[in-house]
Order: sequence, then C-alpha cells, then structure tokens
Amino acid sequence: MSNETKTNADGSINAGGDTNNNTKKDVSKGSNIITPRSQDYSEWYLDVIKAADMAEYSPVKGCMIIKPTGYAIWENMQKELDARFKETGVENAYFPMFIPERFLNKEKEHVEGFAPEIAVVTHAGGKKLDEPLVLRPTSETIMYDTFSHWIQSYRDLPLLINQWANVIRWEMRPRLFLRTVEFLWQEGHTVHETEKEADERAREMLEIYRDFAEEVLAIPVILGVKTESEKFAGAFKTYCVEAIMQDGKALQFGTSHHLGQNFAKAFDVKFLGRENTMEYGWQTSWGVSTRMIGGLIMTHADDKGLVLPPKIAGVQVVITTIINNDEDRDLIIAKAQEVSSWLKEEGIKVKIDSRDIRPGEKFYEWERKGVPVRLELGKKDLANNTLFMARRDTGEKTSISADDVVVTVANTLEAIQANLYDRAVAYRKEKEKVVDTWEDFVKEIEAGNFVHAHWSGDAGVEAQIKEETAATIRCIPFDQKMEDGVCIKSGKPSKGRVVFAKSY
Amino acid sequence: MSNETKTNADGSINAGGDTNNNTKKDVSKGSNIITPRSQDYSEWYLDVIKAADMAEYSPVKGCMIIKPTGYAIWENMQKELDARFKETGVENAYFPMFIPERFLNKEKEHVEGFAPEIAVVTHAGGKKLDEPLVLRPTSETIMYDTFSHWIQSYRDLPLLINQWANVIRWEMRPRLFLRTVEFLWQEGHTVHETEKEADERAREMLEIYRDFAEEVLAIPVILGVKTESEKFAGAFKTYCVEAIMQDGKALQFGTSHHLGQNFAKAFDVKFLGRENTMEYGWQTSWGVSTRMIGGLIMTHADDKGLVLPPKIAGVQVVITTIINNDEDRDLIIAKAQEVSSWLKEEGIKVKIDSRDIRPGEKFYEWERKGVPVRLELGKKDLANNTLFMARRDTGEKTSISADDVVVTVANTLEAIQANLYDRAVAYRKEKEKVVDTWEDFVKEIEAGNFVHAHWSGDAGVEAQIKEETAATIRCIPFDQKMEDGVCIKSGKPSKGRVVFAKSY
Repeated sequence: MSNETKTNADGSINAGGDTNNNTKKDVSKGSNIITPRSQDYSEWYLDVIKAADMAEYSPVKGCMIIKPTGYAIWENMQKELDARFKETGVENAYFPMFIPERFLNKEKEHVEGFAPEIAVVTHAGGKKLDEPLVLRPTSETIMYDTFSHWIQSYRDLPLLINQWANVIRWEMRPRLFLRTVEFLWQEGHTVHETEKEADERAREMLEIYRDFAEEVLAIPVILGVKTESEKFAGAFKTYCVEAIMQDGKALQFGTSHHLGQNFAKAFDVKFLGRENTMEYGWQTSWGVSTRMIGGLIMTHADDKGLVLPPKIAGVQVVITTIINNDEDRDLIIAKAQEVSSWLKEEGIKVKIDSRDIRPGEKFYEWERKGVPVRLELGKKDLANNTLFMARRDTGEKTSISADDVVVTVANTLEAIQANLYDRAVAYRKEKEKVVDTWEDFVKEIEAGNFVHAHWSGDAGVEAQIKEETAATIRCIPFDQKMEDGVCIKSGKPSKGRVVFAKSY
Repeated sequence: MSNETKTNADGSINAGGDTNNNTKKDVSKGSNIITPRSQDYSEWYLDVIKAADMAEYSPVKGCMIIKPTGYAIWENMQKELDARFKETGVENAYFPMFIPERFLNKEKEHVEGFAPEIAVVTHAGGKKLDEPLVLRPTSETIMYDTFSHWIQSYRDLPLLINQWANVIRWEMRPRLFLRTVEFLWQEGHTVHETEKEADERAREMLEIYRDFAEEVLAIPVILGVKTESEKFAGAFKTYCVEAIMQDGKALQFGTSHHLGQNFAKAFDVKFLGRENTMEYGWQTSWGVSTRMIGGLIMTHADDKGLVLPPKIAGVQVVITTIINNDEDRDLIIAKAQEVSSWLKEEGIKVKIDSRDIRPGEKFYEWERKGVPVRLELGKKDLANNTLFMARRDTGEKTSISADDVVVTVANTLEAIQANLYDRAVAYRKEKEKVVDTWEDFVKEIEAGNFVHAHWSGDAGVEAQIKEETAATIRCIPFDQKMEDGVCIKSGKPSKGRVVFAKSY
C-alpha cells in the first residue's frame, strides 16, 4: 500500500474548493500533476482522486475521508438508486450497527466468510461488555433476527427493506473508494413466500444495478452468476454485475444474492403458509457501495483528471468568466447569470465561476473535476453574442451562438453521455478475448484482459487457476452459450465458457 | 427502563404495513391499545410509536430499529434540512466513524464530557489493535485534525462542512428516539476568520433549526444560550432550541455551538491571516438528530396515535375505498385513482388504500399513523359525486364535493398545519410560568411547567436547584428582558430571568 499512503501523508488539498476559492498552487498548474496511466496506473488513480479533490486517507489506517466533490457523486448515486428501489415497493429502514457476536455465529458459512474481517467492541460506558458487539460487516443476521418477529403469515410477505448505512470490514490493503475499512453502501433485504419469487426479486434488483450502471454511469457491465467459491458467504446463489476497468481488471460493481432458506432456517424466519403449514421464508439481499465511485473513475477518467457522465455530474455545465478589466465585469457576469438561468429552466445543473483568478486556472480546475461542459464568456463573446464551449470527453472546442445555447448544451450533454458509454463498450470489446488453450489463457490474463474460456465446474481447478494466474471466475454469464468444450486447465468436459479476469 | 423494554419483548407489529396488508388483529382494534396520556405518559409515548409502527428496541441493549414509517419521517427531515444547509453554502462530506483515542484526549473539556459515554474497539481483523479506536460520539476531533491540513490561509475560509451519520453514546437509560446508544444525526462543522463571523454562523444555523421546527414540524421553540454548566463539552458558547413537550418537560431540539478557538488550538487549525500572521480559526458545530422525531410525537400525538403536520408527512392524504360488493369495485377504484391524480398534480402526497379489509380497520390504521387527511370513497359518494373527508387533528368529518376536492384538500392541509402550530403555541403559553419565590418555583416545576425565574449566574446555585428539583436551566433566552431581581434560590442579585424545566 505504499502508493496509497502518500495521499494520506500529504493530505493537503483544500476542501470545498468549489465555493471557497481555495485552489492550491501545485494543483492549479493543471493536469501535469497527474501521473499518466501508461506510466503507473495505481498512481494515476490516486492522482485523479486528489486532483479532483474527491477523497483522502484518514489518520485511522484504512479509512477514508470523502470530500465534498466525492460525496456529491455519492449523493447523486443514492438519489438515483433510492428512487428506483422505491418504485418496486422497497421501503427504507435503519438497523443498529452493533451485532451480538452470537448472531454472527448462527449461519456457519456466513461467520466463516466474515470472521477474519470483523471489528469488535469490547468496552463501552466505562465497562467491559458482557457480550462483545461486532460492527456490522453486513446486516443479514441482525435484520433477520428481527424479521422473524415481524413475519407471521404469508400475508406479511413480501417484506422489502433497504438500508443506507456504513459498514466495517477490516481490510489490510486499503485503496480509496475500492476497498476501505469503513465504507458507505445500501443493503436491501427481502423475504418471500416462494423460491421463484425470491429469485425473481434478486434478478430484478440486479437489473436495477445494470440499468443504473449503463444508463446513468455509462459503465457497460456483464451480468452473471458467481461460482460456488466466489458467492456470498451464506448465499444460495450470488448474481453479479461486473465491469472492466481501464487496466483490464474486473470490478465487482454490485451483487444480488438469492439466499434460499439458509438464513431463514438459522434465524427462524417462518410464516404460516396458504396451506396452513409453517414454512421458512425465501430471502434475498443486494448491495452496492461507494466502491462504484472507484468504478466510475476507472471507467471514464483520463490523464487530465476525472470525466463525469452528465447524468451523474453534480455540475453539468460550468460557465467561466474571462474578465480582463473592471469595466466589463458587470456586463459579463450579468450575461453569465442570464445564460445560467436559461439552462436551469431546462433542468440543467449549472454553476458560474466568476472568481478573479487566471482563466487557465479555472479551466484546469473544472477539467480535473470532470465537469462535462465548460462555457467560457469574455468581452469578445459578449460583442459577438457567442460563448466558447469545451467538451470534457473529447476536448473539442467550438464557438456557439448565445441564442442557441440551451439546445446546443442539452444536445452536447446527451452526446457526451452516449459517447462515454460507447467508448467504454468499445474498450470492453477490445479487452474481451475468447481462448481455447492454457497458453493463450495465461497470455491474455497477463495482458490484462477479460477471458472467455471453458471450465468444467471443478472448484479445485478454479482454485488452481487462481493460484497460478491470480485470475478468478468473475461470473458464469447470463448470456452464456451452451457449447461443448474442454476445461482450459484440466481438459475435463465443459458445457460453456465462463469469464475470467484479475479483479479489484 | 421497564416501560421501554416491553416493546422489545413483544416486537410483533408488522413492518411495511403500508404496502403489505399485514395489519395484526390486536392493533387493528383501533386506538384502545394506546394508554391514555393522563394515565401513563411514558407508556403512551411508547404505545404511539408502536401503534404507528415507527420503531422498536433491538436485541442490542439501548439500540433501536427505525421501521419504515419512522424512517420516512427522518428522510423528510433530512431532505428539508439538507436543502436549507446547502442554500447557505454548506457542503456534505463523510469522515470515519473511528477516532483514535489520543485525538479525543486533545481537548480537555471535550474528553471529560464524553469519556463516560464512549464505546471502544480494541480488536479487529483477528488482532488486538495497537491503539484503541473510539466510535464517534461526535466528530469535532477527527474533523478538525483534518481541517488543520486543509486550511492554509484566510482564502480557504470559511470552510463549511456537514455530515449525515450515525453516532454512538453509551446511554444507560434508553428511550426510543429520545435517547439511544446509536442515533442518526447531522453535524455541521465550520471554520471562520473572525470571532464575529463564527458567532453569526452559529446563530444562522440555529435560526435554520428554529425555522424548520416551527414552519415544518409546527413545534414552537424557545431560543437561547446555555449556561456554562449546560454547554457542549469544549464549546465557547452553546446556542439552543428548546421545545415544550405535552408533559411539560423540555426537549433540547437542537444545538449550535460557537466553539471559539478551543478546538483550533488543540488541533492546530491555523491560517495565514490578511496581516500575514498565523492565526487560529474560529469554529462552530451544530446538530440535530432522530431525537426530533420524539419531539414531533410528544408535541402533536394524541390518545389515538400519531398526528403529523402536513409538511413533514410522507403521506398527506389517504383515500380509503369502501367496497361492499364486487360490482362496484372497479368504478370506486377508478374514481379513487382519478382523485389521486388530481391531488398529485398539485404536489399533494397521496396514497390509495383499496385493501379488501373492513373499512374501520383501514381508518384506524391511518389514524394511528397520523396521516393528516383521510378521504373515504364508497358507492354512495360515487352516486353523489362526493367524498367523505376526515381531519386527523380535529377529528372533524365532512362530505365534500368531488369537483372541489383539490382546493378543499389543499386548504385543509394548510389549516391543519396552522392549527397544530397554534395549538402547540397555546399549550406552551399555558405551561410558561413566571415566578418570584422559591415556594412557587418548586410548585410550578413539580406541576410540570416551564418556569421563568431570576438566577444570579452562580453555577453552584444552579447545581443545587437541579439536585433539589431535577430542574435545569434550559437556556438564557435571546429575548430575555433586562430587569433587576433576586435569584430565586440564593437571593443574590440578578439582571434577568432564565428558563427552568425538567428535561428529556
């Protein structure tokens, strides 16, 4: 973690840069403070976060401070997802962050999966506690103990609960947004009458994640099922959304678990069925986290900094004023405000930057922060009734008519959203390889690719491949083609290809 | 805590009752499950929470589970407050919930104030930690350590940060919403160049709390300054918003602290000033929590259940169908949907309850949940082009024309909002007493009143009064009249009256 701690030691980028004019000199020089991807990808990732002023490491090892620019993205993510969840009947609630240790021990696979990562409170209120309390790594156990009291009969089902919360998993190799000891997430938990209904719900929520990833974040994803070795501790099946990052590594964007009746049996989540018999509930849980912000960065950002898809950007358009002498000031600012009000009326999120600093300094700042469209307005523009427009994604610059600004900007925002998605799809295509020999497999994995290859379903072979290449099976894709083949490693018969990659 | 734990042991009200038809028989009997206020106020409070399905105790002692109906109120509170904060330039961020123990020890008064209530993580990731980590009881220490890196010069100021988070204070006498080991809140933290600016900010945020309490929650409040003994641990001055509950006790609704330079000195929050000298920042912090929900209940609820002011209600209007035979069903539901769409167009939050259960069961459920307006729609209404309307606040019932429903409902919602506020103001007037003798003081405090009385400013006398009567000085009110008098207890000279009451 030598790369990551650098940020912590430095930790000197200003917060609230948007409103407080507090750009620091070394940052304001422009994009040259960002290590190019080609030179050092990990360093580039951290540099982008720093240059866009999104987050930094905290004095507590492994924990991060999400700064206003980063947190605004999280707020937008929450807003978009929360509305989609609620549309399907899900309601929000809040459960304690403390879990009695005995709860965690009730589902065997679950405790084995999480035991190495838990943090425990042993002392509180000046005393040693009778029973240690675990800080939630996820809330299945505490929620399902309660659900067992809430549910009496089939009429109480489905129960559809979501929670926005912080969770704790003791990570020894932290990386901003991708892997931190404390992170923010949502965790949905549902109980159903039948296996079929639970499975449909798990897939429905996965589809919401896909839609959000592709339509809002412009991140193309692969949907599928995890293998037994990779599934969630205690789940019956884990569905997942996987994305390809710019270094060819996979990022698990979100997961949706069909839990079967495993937890229901451990926590006595029973109901009186339609046939008057007591039955165990069928359950799902599903979650996405602040890790999505890492995925957003590693999908779209470039060597100049962050690049935000318009649909997730807190600021979609920034109007920067170019004021060379005091007499023009009022007129230029008045025009900027007029243009801003036109754009706002169309629901476009716009910000005026009329700070008295060098124009270049302002341009670079918004470039680093990934604002999709920058409009510049100076004395000449005023005379010509024009604005100068720069696209963040392509760098393209054009002079546009002030009269058409609303339509031009709206179209440009749409074009940027589409372009970012298309670019990511093209990248994914380039990175997806179909191989049939072990030699090719090793070569493509080492080249940082997503590899479609045959595998017989043998967990021992899966483990061996992981040990030798660091690649894991990301998923058995939903669109898997049924075809006879032989396992890339063992030569045993296989009925279809699965997706291998190295991952975050 | 014998009263409170009852709820936990039972814990059998269904969640998601709104959408899942899962009303339990004992609850559906109506308001008779709620203990009258006159009989047992504490019991009444818990019964209202249970009957409205808002929250319950969790298996972890002192922690609560906020159920969907309760959480929806919190979400509305967040939305309203967050918008008001952002309008003043505040930005949201997120800091770790872990605080290194040594941080807490840096500000002497602060650590003394919080030490008895802290919870400590000693083991994590399977190992004993080198340094114990405290779970944040509040975030001054962890934030200001970071602020010291963020701030270099006066140009970086003001720094205006807010955080929505869970905090932990080990409470031995928990009470749902009012006092729990873990609670949800917002904590704002700002840094300023001058003492004057910090003081203005602290008062500005207090004014936002007042506005929110009075205009949205219809809770009239008293604004003032805390005495030295009652102020926040480490603050220079604590401003507060106090409300009177139905039992005459005070609820501290929110506080806003002018921290002076105390924390800045402890955490080295320094900046290069305009005169080129290094100076310590002037700071504020301010917060409100899920405790506001307790205040909302104890201001407006009655013996039938919760009563929600329209401006905070998640559902402002419920349309309940009365269907006696299958042939009317489609027509009645179609009309309900039509009325619902008209109301929605006007921005009114409406819900249709067309469940096939006894109408009375539906009415009581919405009454218990405090929905401001209930519309009933049956066959007769259809024929007469009317709806039957019931107000939750007054219980008033009238038949209204379906053609006028939007205007009638909009006016009624406004009238309810105003009535609830006026009713609470009238109640407060009744409960506020001005006394001049110790005998009257004791009598009025015991009768559960807010007492305006002279006090010389002597902390020893303040402590003595608290010991003898359990009353504390809620605040030195902003509108304190300067008048010569003598301290109610000590007979020492006093320049004005302060407000005494028992409190939550």
